Amino acid sequence: MIRHSFVVANGVRHHVAECGEGEPIVLLHGWPEFWAAWEPIFARLGNRYRLIAPDFRGFGESENPHPGPTDAVNARSLSDDVAAIMDALDLERAGIVGHDVGANVMLDFGVRHASRATGLLFFNCPTHGVGRRWRDPSHINEIWYQTFHQQPYAAAMVTSSRENCRRHIGHFLKHWAHRKDAFDAVEERWIDNFMRPGVMQGGFNWYIGQNRGRLAVMAETAPKPPKIAVAARVFWGRHDPILRAEWADVLPDYFEDVEIGFCEDAGHFVHYEQPDQAASVIDAFFTKLRGGPGSLAGGTKAHPAGGGGSKLHRALTRSVTEVLPLGIAQAFHPQTTPLSL
Amino acid sequence: MIRHSFVVANGVRHHVAECGEGEPIVLLHGWPEFWAAWEPIFARLGNRYRLIAPDFRGFGESENPHPGPTDAVNARSLSDDVAAIMDALDLERAGIVGHDVGANVMLDFGVRHASRATGLLFFNCPTHGVGRRWRDPSHINEIWYQTFHQQPYAAAMVTSSRENCRRHIGHFLKHWAHRKDAFDAVEERWIDNFMRPGVMQGGFNWYIGQNRGRLAVMAETAPKPPKIAVAARVFWGRHDPILRAEWADVLPDYFEDVEIGFCEDAGHFVHYEQPDQAASVIDAFFTKLRGGPGSLAGGTKAHPAGGGGSKLHRALTRSVTEVLPLGIAQAFHPQTTPLSL
Repeated sequence: MIRHSFVVANGVRHHVAECGEGEPIVLLHGWPEFWAAWEPIFARLGNRYRLIAPDFRGFGESENPHPGPTDAVNARSLSDDVAAIMDALDLERAGIVGHDVGANVMLDFGVRHASRATGLLFFNCPTHGVGRRWRDPSHINEIWYQTFHQQPYAAAMVTSSRENCRRHIGHFLKHWAHRKDAFDAVEERWIDNFMRPGVMQGGFNWYIGQNRGRLAVMAETAPKPPKIAVAARVFWGRHDPILRAEWADVLPDYFEDVEIGFCEDAGHFVHYEQPDQAASVIDAFFTKLRGGPGSLAGGTKAHPAGGGGSKLHRALTRSVTEVLPLGIAQAFHPQTTPLSL
Repeated sequence: MIRHSFVVANGVRHHVAECGEGEPIVLLHGWPEFWAAWEPIFARLGNRYRLIAPDFRGFGESENPHPGPTDAVNARSLSDDVAAIMDALDLERAGIVGHDVGANVMLDFGVRHASRATGLLFFNCPTHGVGRRWRDPSHINEIWYQTFHQQPYAAAMVTSSRENCRRHIGHFLKHWAHRKDAFDAVEERWIDNFMRPGVMQGGFNWYIGQNRGRLAVMAETAPKPPKIAVAARVFWGRHDPILRAEWADVLPDYFEDVEIGFCEDAGHFVHYEQPDQAASVIDAFFTKLRGGPGSLAGGTKAHPAGGGGSKLHRALTRSVTEVLPLGIAQAFHPQTTPLSL
């Protein structure tokens, strides 16, 4: 059962959807998404975690305190919102899982609110190290929306009718997915969401707020952020056209401790396109972090044949075996211990 | 008085607007434009030239033989259309003046149909030599529309209402202009034009057709075209945000004989923002080419104090003096003789 509540965090009324009890995991959505992007994960992990999916300010049912275009919505401000939402929910620490906008927010959260995260799990992870590859000729035709969304007339045009909203939002839900029908069953709900007053501009404000930093990253003039010390796991959709899987090569420069794998059957929306695999990876990561079967806690590498493990764990590791080509993590980051399978 | 006619050229029914009698000059429009972009030039030069402004296929009142997205509309095919329109009008040679799409078409025309042009006059001139500067971080936020216009849903969204059409077309008419009110008086005519069935997709097809070449130019893998031998003149709006005036630096690599100047008071639409200056430059260029006052014909450099010249000519040269900083053409291309003022 999904529980909906509203909390005031950083002065903004945030909508939070929750499911389940247990170890808390905060799930951070992307664009064009809102809390409901995590429903498939709710359905799979709500029986053993407390899953907490807020809507970012201006997205979904959270308040949009910025009626028009603003640069106040960016990775830093949304990261502070996440910490404030955790305060409001009386959560000192939680696992953090995110994607797209959420992944960008986590890259800030992992630096500036590191003590609040037990671990960071990214479905695709666009770091500062992407650099000029954002503007490679082979990628130029992918990034146009990052500018279109900054145009003062864009939200009005896209929301001038449900049909226009469906054209634009529907384009990205299909274009960025590898499993093209992933969102077909929920398309009308997505349109309902983005036709709510303020929500289109609310999402577009992200692109205004990120613009300066985005250009500096492309120019390779942005200062390199410190390495994130929080344990991290990246499970990257192999076929994401906007956040390319090969950009995983630089992840070891941005994390002290990161495990990298690829979802061979997904594009941008790993959590929605392949929710079984996504849920398995989430569960395996947080199980390990708390010292469960397969845990790396204490620096002990679990022996594949040892420990027995639960039926669930065996199922999870089998799933992960299918999607993580062994040796890839080492190839990127020799000092990283791969998943202990 | 403007004369409208239709000619079949390359199998496509083309609309042609004409004005005046005398030496023929073909005027090639850009996007978001159509023949009417040349009305201010008609008004100024129709008393001494035969001005011929066709609508490109899919633009204005010309037929759009491609009901949906196609890559058949590109610099090469439109250049062939121009030659075929000249055939239909029984014009062996003409002066060619153009801008934006028209300028791109002229860069092909000057190579493949060189014998048909008495001279080429560009209002801003984006050559192959722009190269990677198209995708400089400082320019990334300018080029997004070149991809948006390729999206299969773009034309339907933009033409879903007059208001959306006004938002999108109006954005570019203002954003690309330095004199922001240049198109205010004709905005409704522009919207009328772009709301005609097929015209929005007709213009967007240009971006589909140019995409492969555009990416190759950005990647600097496109073969360098041969230098254009036809006499050329470029009068570049100093404040054009999309075709930057500093890109004039490479023009001497693409023309055997080019004179370069800048319109200090215009952006992208020199002919519409500063039609007095634009008309003066057109008249001075073609006057010179036919050996009139200030002519360079026969390699003789006209003496500034010699020849007297008409009152008109003196007015023209005064105008050009104001807008062409002396020495700029030499700085770019030492062997180019600057305007003989």
